[in-house]
Amino acid sequence: MEAAEFRRRGKEMVDLIADYLENIEQRPVYPDVEPGYLRSLIPEEAPEEPDTYEDVVKDIERVIMPGVTHWHSPYFYAYFPTANSFPAMLADMLSGAIGCIGFSWAASPACTELETVMMDWLGKMLKLPEDFIAGTHGQGGGVIQGTASEATLVALLAARSRAVRMILASDPQRPETGITSKLVAYSSDQFCATLGTTPSCAFDHITELGPICNAEKIWMHIDAAYAGSSFICPEFRPLLNGIEFADSFNFNPHKWLLVNFDCSTMWVRKRSDLIGAFKMDPLYLKHDHQESGRYFYTDNSLFRSLKMWFVFRMYGLKGLQDYIRKHVELAKEFESLVRADQRFEISADVVLGLVCFRLKGSNEVNETLLKRINNGRKIHLVPCQLSGQFVLRFAVCARTTESRHIREAWRLITQLAEEVMQELPH
Amino acid sequence: MEAAEFRRRGKEMVDLIADYLENIEQRPVYPDVEPGYLRSLIPEEAPEEPDTYEDVVKDIERVIMPGVTHWHSPYFYAYFPTANSFPAMLADMLSGAIGCIGFSWAASPACTELETVMMDWLGKMLKLPEDFIAGTHGQGGGVIQGTASEATLVALLAARSRAVRMILASDPQRPETGITSKLVAYSSDQFCATLGTTPSCAFDHITELGPICNAEKIWMHIDAAYAGSSFICPEFRPLLNGIEFADSFNFNPHKWLLVNFDCSTMWVRKRSDLIGAFKMDPLYLKHDHQESGRYFYTDNSLFRSLKMWFVFRMYGLKGLQDYIRKHVELAKEFESLVRADQRFEISADVVLGLVCFRLKGSNEVNETLLKRINNGRKIHLVPCQLSGQFVLRFAVCARTTESRHIREAWRLITQLAEEVMQELPH
Repeated sequence: MEAAEFRRRGKEMVDLIADYLENIEQRPVYPDVEPGYLRSLIPEEAPEEPDTYEDVVKDIERVIMPGVTHWHSPYFYAYFPTANSFPAMLADMLSGAIGCIGFSWAASPACTELETVMMDWLGKMLKLPEDFIAGTHGQGGGVIQGTASEATLVALLAARSRAVRMILASDPQRPETGITSKLVAYSSDQFCATLGTTPSCAFDHITELGPICNAEKIWMHIDAAYAGSSFICPEFRPLLNGIEFADSFNFNPHKWLLVNFDCSTMWVRKRSDLIGAFKMDPLYLKHDHQESGRYFYTDNSLFRSLKMWFVFRMYGLKGLQDYIRKHVELAKEFESLVRADQRFEISADVVLGLVCFRLKGSNEVNETLLKRINNGRKIHLVPCQLSGQFVLRFAVCARTTESRHIREAWRLITQLAEEVMQELPH
Repeated sequence: MEAAEFRRRGKEMVDLIADYLENIEQRPVYPDVEPGYLRSLIPEEAPEEPDTYEDVVKDIERVIMPGVTHWHSPYFYAYFPTANSFPAMLADMLSGAIGCIGFSWAASPACTELETVMMDWLGKMLKLPEDFIAGTHGQGGGVIQGTASEATLVALLAARSRAVRMILASDPQRPETGITSKLVAYSSDQFCATLGTTPSCAFDHITELGPICNAEKIWMHIDAAYAGSSFICPEFRPLLNGIEFADSFNFNPHKWLLVNFDCSTMWVRKRSDLIGAFKMDPLYLKHDHQESGRYFYTDNSLFRSLKMWFVFRMYGLKGLQDYIRKHVELAKEFESLVRADQRFEISADVVLGLVCFRLKGSNEVNETLLKRINNGRKIHLVPCQLSGQFVLRFAVCARTTESRHIREAWRLITQLAEEVMQELPH
């Protein structure tokens, strides 16, 4: 396929995508397939000679769509949101075409520079402490990772490297071997200091943890994978109080800030901590501006900052704030519906876009209810366990979710709850 | 931006991309900017109110393009190739729109299933031992990672987990703590067993290393990040001999197999080794088909297998083989040009698409030559160090590189070499 054909097929694909997203709520949100369904639908080997593009496109509906869990359906309330917006998709198209790899400044200056500046834009939107902003002379700054897990790993390695340096500085005679096996990492059962856990969107008390970490020279990494996006709204920013004690901070705009996956943003107070932990400089990566010292890229990356740039500009800060607020309002609306029904209870504070709730009764009755809900394939939820209780999680996820979808979901849930309660003791 | 506007903007973007790639060789391949160039071209903060899309698009030429290293220019000979093809871009557009996260089968059955089947297709194209093919009953199989580094990390953790299990099985009384600090990993200065190193595309003798690893129960991971794609051609497949000793194997179709970044393919002989090392099962990831045991996903992933599917089908195995062969031929053509010029020497065997060469003379004269080449911005190369010598790497990279580009590159190199040799003692 050359450029001329791409002009035609690309435009057809744009329409296919627009059709898919405009009509997504007419599809069952959760697929009705068994493990292994796909293998029998396609050949066992790649073709020797090319297939036609028409055949490939036909197979999207025949092979792929029957097995898709539609994360962007307004009836999808499972897990947490994953972002999807048209400006981000446009930027991703461009990013794919430029197709550069940002493992050094010279390998793609625009890519590495836009990343640093976009991380500053976002850091300022969150009102991060000045230390985390690169600017032209700052010692801190931000870097994009693929996932929050990746950011945690990077923080862990940077922390280890800093700890080893500190120990060796205090005792230069000490042999370096064996130090790392003595190091200790503290975590809860959600791992590091977390703002907005996955099961219930709970918040660690970082204003209490922070001073202890600082006094004991423990690297403090804060993960706000889901909740972080909300901190761009002044009313939710207090949830981030305590950030001033952190050495590194991470959240996922690819969850709730309309920037398509992957885009997990990580800031550090001292770039030198990351550079020190990851520095590698084979000759083929050296370039004339090696020592300008402004950049720190720990990752082969696509031009991921392009989608931040497109999204921030096409929505504006106000548009992004409106988006967050709308999701929180929809969650509050669902919470009110639950609270108004005496058969149900709310299982955790509703702080942002997640509502944890359950039927008053046994775990069994709640498990059965959830199974009925998901088997209906009209809406999709996943559970969590809170203090031994089986709890249903209702996360407002899709960009296009409206009040009518919330009310429809609640109608379905209560209807199924009625059936289940008639059948089972509770 | 809603779907209606996306239909318009998306089609404009398709044309912009086609224009960019059709005319890419008219741009200087390496940008003429200094570190920090970009920050002054855009505001210091995100806008409160949305910008217009027209303004965003205008900024692509004003802000981004001046700082792009054009990896897909036929005059780009640096590093190694990164893949870029129209079928992969079309698949990526669709992948972005579906926007699912594949962290379990239930989270997106089509995504996880197509990945397993595409890894089988590719494994068969490479004629991997049967053990690495999942099929319907196999114990091995493939999984897509982001980069070869990620695959190495995954292999390392799986190896560690297997070693701990073996030690505990042989001595059940032994306390588990402290075991891992006794474990040893063997590597060369390119790390693991490598087929096609980055500096010179050299090959480890895995037929010699393999039996030792097997006898000593050492996990053998083989990395063929660049060279792996060539193994789909029968004439290059012998380079993979010894794979039968490996526990895991990885290469990057996102380098040389026309599948856009990221797509780093990793196979293991026993899926249970990976599952054992990475298993985590919070309640919110449980589903009815939990124990079907067919899948192993260690990564949040996009629908990355879609681009493998589109590329394999639109090129066919023959088309992909032709593509590899053409690049190797172009490298051989460049090698002949170098060998025919008495002032130059070839510094390493030319096995695939990389030619390592230098002026007969000092490192200084070669460093100066490379600097002149890159400052000209017409072609772009990076160096490597081989046995203390400063060597120029000429890697055939772009999909559209033709013989005329190779000859033009050589004309430029010899012209600059003449200048340099007149100025410097050598």
